[in-house]
Amino acid sequence: MSGSEATVPVPSSPPVPVDQGTGRDAILRAARRAFTQRPYAEVTIRGIAADAGVSPSLVVKHFGRKEELFNTVADFGPAAEELFDAPLATLGRHMVVTLVRRRRELKSDPLLRVVFSLGNQDERSLLRDRFHEQVTEALIARLPGRERALRAELIAGHLLGLGATLSLHRDGAGSLATPEHLADLYAPALQTLITG
Amino acid sequence: MSGSEATVPVPSSPPVPVDQGTGRDAILRAARRAFTQRPYAEVTIRGIAADAGVSPSLVVKHFGRKEELFNTVADFGPAAEELFDAPLATLGRHMVVTLVRRRRELKSDPLLRVVFSLGNQDERSLLRDRFHEQVTEALIARLPGRERALRAELIAGHLLGLGATLSLHRDGAGSLATPEHLADLYAPALQTLITG
Repeated sequence: MSGSEATVPVPSSPPVPVDQGTGRDAILRAARRAFTQRPYAEVTIRGIAADAGVSPSLVVKHFGRKEELFNTVADFGPAAEELFDAPLATLGRHMVVTLVRRRRELKSDPLLRVVFSLGNQDERSLLRDRFHEQVTEALIARLPGRERALRAELIAGHLLGLGATLSLHRDGAGSLATPEHLADLYAPALQTLITG
Repeated sequence: MSGSEATVPVPSSPPVPVDQGTGRDAILRAARRAFTQRPYAEVTIRGIAADAGVSPSLVVKHFGRKEELFNTVADFGPAAEELFDAPLATLGRHMVVTLVRRRRELKSDPLLRVVFSLGNQDERSLLRDRFHEQVTEALIARLPGRERALRAELIAGHLLGLGATLSLHRDGAGSLATPEHLADLYAPALQTLITG
């Protein structure tokens, strides 16, 4: 449950998802579904509570009002900070290894949920805006050289694609490979886009 | 509207989406939303018709009963055939150029809809099964060398990631780049996985 990232700005050790029977994880899952699949205006605390099988007041107790809950669910900042926390020369490999480890620890992908928001094709999406600011713009700021925006978008694509295919082939060959071996095969593409 | 692929087994020229005021495209869009976001058992022709703003009988007239409509929406076969239709030595570039052209012609990604089905994490998804058979297995069959399943999964990841990032940055740098230029930057990753 990557929603816990929102309360851990710079994780120095792997965050561990803990529910402790409070319904916290169920609420986060329900909130993620709601905010990614429906326009912000249509999402209600009541609906999220019903989906999570808890009372609306428990949702507010754990996460505050709707806007605060959205900010928890939509926050890609801590994940981006962790994914991009390496020297440029080894950043491609660091991103792949970190993404795979984080997915396995949290049983959730740190970035992929933004893709579910593409289902609402007609809606301007706050979740997408957040991703642009916290992931794409952060990458652009780190890249040297030319065509930085285009390269950052394609790097984001490679990262989203890795998450997508690992989720899609949940019991596939990727699920049996070590993060390091996945990086051997997948990271050179990112590294070329990083160092230009 | 990539649903039109289902009626064009091997497109020799770019298919053009035509609605002609029949509601066909609206029905396909609604069906895609329904089948990707909900378990198969919960999807109804009535619900799709309501979402598309047409009568249930019009849905059946155009696409047949629920199972046939699902087969139309879920069919990745023609897209896979077109994407993989090149010699191995140039397949990476062909896949990127074809994917980008097809997205622009049809205003829809030929593969990406499978990712929306990941929102239902607990459900076994017929859409995902279809993707495995028609995309991943088809790729495995084409690849030479070792670790073919893993490489095919990662190639599928690169393709899904490209579609995801282009959709996510709809007005970004990628939207202004030619398919050939996108291939210059993005295809080497695929080619390395193809030729091993």
